[in-house]
Amino acid sequence: MLLTGFEPFGGEAVNPSQEIVRALDGATIAAHRVVGSVLPVSFAATVPMLEDLVERHRPMLVLALGQAGGRSEISLERIAVNLVDARIADNDGLQPIDVPVVAGAPAAYFTNLPAKAIVAELRTRGIPAAPSLSAGSFVCNQVFFALAHLLATRLPEARGGFVHVPWLPQQAARQPGQPSMALATMIEGIHAAIECALAVQEDLATSGGTTH
Amino acid sequence: MLLTGFEPFGGEAVNPSQEIVRALDGATIAAHRVVGSVLPVSFAATVPMLEDLVERHRPMLVLALGQAGGRSEISLERIAVNLVDARIADNDGLQPIDVPVVAGAPAAYFTNLPAKAIVAELRTRGIPAAPSLSAGSFVCNQVFFALAHLLATRLPEARGGFVHVPWLPQQAARQPGQPSMALATMIEGIHAAIECALAVQEDLATSGGTTH
Amino acid sequence: MLLTGFEPFGGEAVNPSQEIVRALDGATIAAHRVVGSVLPVSFAATVPMLEDLVERHRPMLVLALGQAGGRSEISLERIAVNLVDARIADNDGLQPIDVPVVAGAPAAYFTNLPAKAIVAELRTRGIPAAPSLSAGSFVCNQVFFALAHLLATRLPEARGGFVHVPWLPQQAARQPGQPSMALATMIEGIHAAIECALAVQEDLATSGGTTH
Amino acid sequence: MLLTGFEPFGGEAVNPSQEIVRALDGATIAAHRVVGSVLPVSFAATVPMLEDLVERHRPMLVLALGQAGGRSEISLERIAVNLVDARIADNDGLQPIDVPVVAGAPAAYFTNLPAKAIVAELRTRGIPAAPSLSAGSFVCNQVFFALAHLLATRLPEARGGFVHVPWLPQQAARQPGQPSMALATMIEGIHAAIECALAVQEDLATSGGTTH
Repeated sequence: MLLTGFEPFGGEAVNPSQEIVRALDGATIAAHRVVGSVLPVSFAATVPMLEDLVERHRPMLVLALGQAGGRSEISLERIAVNLVDARIADNDGLQPIDVPVVAGAPAAYFTNLPAKAIVAELRTRGIPAAPSLSAGSFVCNQVFFALAHLLATRLPEARGGFVHVPWLPQQAARQPGQPSMALATMIEGIHAAIECALAVQEDLATSGGTTH
Repeated sequence: MLLTGFEPFGGEAVNPSQEIVRALDGATIAAHRVVGSVLPVSFAATVPMLEDLVERHRPMLVLALGQAGGRSEISLERIAVNLVDARIADNDGLQPIDVPVVAGAPAAYFTNLPAKAIVAELRTRGIPAAPSLSAGSFVCNQVFFALAHLLATRLPEARGGFVHVPWLPQQAARQPGQPSMALATMIEGIHAAIECALAVQEDLATSGGTTH
Repeated sequence: MLLTGFEPFGGEAVNPSQEIVRALDGATIAAHRVVGSVLPVSFAATVPMLEDLVERHRPMLVLALGQAGGRSEISLERIAVNLVDARIADNDGLQPIDVPVVAGAPAAYFTNLPAKAIVAELRTRGIPAAPSLSAGSFVCNQVFFALAHLLATRLPEARGGFVHVPWLPQQAARQPGQPSMALATMIEGIHAAIECALAVQEDLATSGGTTH
Repeated sequence: MLLTGFEPFGGEAVNPSQEIVRALDGATIAAHRVVGSVLPVSFAATVPMLEDLVERHRPMLVLALGQAGGRSEISLERIAVNLVDARIADNDGLQPIDVPVVAGAPAAYFTNLPAKAIVAELRTRGIPAAPSLSAGSFVCNQVFFALAHLLATRLPEARGGFVHVPWLPQQAARQPGQPSMALATMIEGIHAAIECALAVQEDLATSGGTTH
């Protein structure tokens, strides 16, 4: 399975999604090897790199991670929208406003990950998690939408989705009043999310069922 | 030094302040042994037990810890008020409304802990922390006020204060949208707070200075 | 133009969207008469009633309003999603989980209202407003999606959108800590939003331009 | 009765407390005339001006108002603390850190206004209100403490307190995501608070009772 994160952006020195990818890269989860990759925060460069990774590895599961500063929980994103509307500049200094991720593509895709099952599993393990109906309109949503479009058009058997994680404590320590989550908690949560997503795929493969 | 926490309350199965006390009880910090004690959440029983602990150990530093569900950071409380106004019942089923902690005592005490120095130290270490101007009006503030009154009237050389900690992740996992903090982060933070408070006392003792 | 609101739900005695519709029903804004209608909070009955209203009046502009308890601002919704996932039961006692609004329809529609221009206009007038990327997955989003689908498939010349409004002060007075907005502020805001939407349509009609 | 507010500060063009004072100045509430006065936001000048007003009018009731940006409700402050710790500079450019309001005075005063009765009355009228245990440590708390000290030492028969009000809509319109309250709602709320406070004093005067 392919696990992606992002490099730091917005003046931060660290990005929790990058740290999670570094921690899980090369691990084996439910007999699947995790291929980790850290993407640039670049409206121009990120999607081609993602496409390249997917073409090269042709994974059955892709989980893309990103930082959502200000959120308290691990967010399982349910809907990718065909919209880029950047509140701040990316790491190349570009700040596109109200343009589509993929011109001519549908307005949105629902994730085909079992978002609610993953949330339930994480909560059972004592990890704060919630489903989310908006991944925003920055590079995170761009990657989420591009991934969903890629899977829909070229890898219909695969599953993919996007998970937002809170700030790390050391980031929140510089922003009074803001929530955070320890890296260890995030890694445990993402590990469990991958397990859960793979288990659903196993079930479907075994039963010959198809996904909704 | 004396470190106190509370047992769980409000229907919770765990209290982070109890877990921190268990983790640090018996430790040696800056050549001082930590004596940990878990207090009941009881308007009737808690203060006598605290007084007993202080009389028995006559500590130079007392740090009382409590849970503040909904807060994102470790809160260094600056002011204890002579007010009990319980929003929910304590573990004995009592819910006193608008009564003083100690009849005839002053309206409030400022902590003599170096609250801002501790906040600065925690933030430097990447641990979210903030000074707070209200410890509420439940058992936490009751203990904080009773401690401040006890030190002012009987142990003027000692220092004492109160620190509120957020929910643990497993508590927030049952309350969607709420912030939390990992136990390891809290333990590191309270350890650093004790070090910082002891260092200030050492400085004063060495220089023969007195506290403000 | 057609302006819809909702009856109260979730045990409330009032719904601000209903009050706004009552206040503006019959008004003339920029030479257009406002036809106001209050919809039931019913997954079964609301959409047929909306379709009936649109068929009967064939409006050039439809603005649907709904209550978003807990939000501080007037929210201009940008994206309607083809998902019903009810957190609470509707007024008929039904609580559908993870079903489409319209089976076989696209995953989402972007509004063709000038959402950001309306937000800018409201802020200039001193009315708190913000664009929003999620209208939720309750009856509000159901109506928003059904409206967008209806306009796209049967009235492509018309414009339509959805606006969420905060609780009224009398609702927030029963929910400590929650934000609210005065009815007069909301009415002024929705009046301005209608003006702004109609002005854009006039411009387009005059110039022969088409909408994005 | 004396009603005070503040001029704008922190770069704002307006202060809701000033607007409320202007609206109620000269009004008669329960046979008492309202004397309104707008205070500067100045650690040096505000307290002498307040003392002067109290000496000149010798009011039986003093209600001081201030702006608490970010709060959603009218806050009835219960405790004034003898601490100035300014987060931003006042309108003279001064930003005192950790100094007492009145050297040698007690650490705090509880208000002798019926704060909870006022909150209950406001909520009954549909106006969001809550008691508060912290008025902060800026000019608002300075005035609150100075007032409480003045009444305690020179006018023990009088009552006084402090009420924080939210931002006005036009202020929140410039700060996305922030709550606000309409001026009309605030004026109605402060009018009701004054009525409620005067009624309690009448009761006490009639019965010969003394205040807690």
